[in-house]
Amino acid sequence: MPQGQPATVPDDGLTTRQRRNRPLLVVHTGEMKGKSTAAFGLALRGWNQGWSIAVFQFVKSAKWTVGEESALRALGQLHEQTGQGGPVAWYKMGAGWSWSRTQGTEVDHAAQAAEGWAEIKRRLAETEHDLYVLDEFTYPMKWGWVDVAEVVDTLRQRPGRQHVVITGRDADPRLVEAADLVTEMTKIKHPMDAGQKGQRGIEW
Amino acid sequence: MPQGQPATVPDDGLTTRQRRNRPLLVVHTGEMKGKSTAAFGLALRGWNQGWSIAVFQFVKSAKWTVGEESALRALGQLHEQTGQGGPVAWYKMGAGWSWSRTQGTEVDHAAQAAEGWAEIKRRLAETEHDLYVLDEFTYPMKWGWVDVAEVVDTLRQRPGRQHVVITGRDADPRLVEAADLVTEMTKIKHPMDAGQKGQRGIEW
Repeated sequence: MPQGQPATVPDDGLTTRQRRNRPLLVVHTGEMKGKSTAAFGLALRGWNQGWSIAVFQFVKSAKWTVGEESALRALGQLHEQTGQGGPVAWYKMGAGWSWSRTQGTEVDHAAQAAEGWAEIKRRLAETEHDLYVLDEFTYPMKWGWVDVAEVVDTLRQRPGRQHVVITGRDADPRLVEAADLVTEMTKIKHPMDAGQKGQRGIEW
Repeated sequence: MPQGQPATVPDDGLTTRQRRNRPLLVVHTGEMKGKSTAAFGLALRGWNQGWSIAVFQFVKSAKWTVGEESALRALGQLHEQTGQGGPVAWYKMGAGWSWSRTQGTEVDHAAQAAEGWAEIKRRLAETEHDLYVLDEFTYPMKWGWVDVAEVVDTLRQRPGRQHVVITGRDADPRLVEAADLVTEMTKIKHPMDAGQKGQRGIEW
């Protein structure tokens, strides 16, 4: 059901409409599949609302194109051609962010991650998108490639109505604290336990 | 990483390729958001592989169109027009399954659910699709609208290489037992706890 009854009504002076339209910070964490997939599924909903969607992939190899990228890019093109849905931008670390100054030089993942975050921060300040998917962004946070306190502070203070979804294992407690919605994907059963390897269309 | 190392290599006489290409029965369960969203995200991957995708929505109101439906239908049309990706079929219980004989008569959810399952069973036997999303199908199973033992038996014995994803809370233990991959979406934090209601683009 899309409209549930809230468990409590907070004494925050906001109307239901104001509260409903509050931008969300969403975290998908846990050891299991579905973190990124659910984030990209959420991007489908945003696309359908005509939102401007921006995906930033932080860790996966640049050589790798996940199926969601092709599908969401196709939806972005459909928007350009027909006006249906919203625009889609997709950036991959390692392929070189399009705005990056380190392209062509020796690969420095930490510097690339920091550059990626700097660009996101700039866009947030200018309210460029309606939905940001920061895929596997928990890892640069965990590895100290970006400053967690500064990231959380920036996210808390972002202007306008910009939704942000962050995926990855081991979400920092400060990020969880700042988030509105946190889901943990928990393994009950996985085919790799039975010796099966990943397969096309399922894992990517 | 798309290709992980399996924890064990089973003594089942299959080659890695045979094992890899084994069709999967996937269950997304748990109390939290992301079950359907991750299933539809998976459909994006399948679409990109050129798979024939069929979505069967079992519980949500027929009046309701989730964003994923519009987006996946748009991708299906793109396939028809340009050959990119694969075909997408989307059926909603309550809107009347297209093959249903109970349309126009008094609404009988149990009968509709049984008809939906009968159609899926027919398609599985004829290997009509590559990926079936049975959205919220755990509820007809739970409520006895379909026979759980028969459903599980049919799924176990389905021919060819047909992937099936079933979503919903309270997955039956027999379904979990039969599944290859089971993910539980667990709540860590939800905005409704803080009095927030659902919003467009996020909940639907």
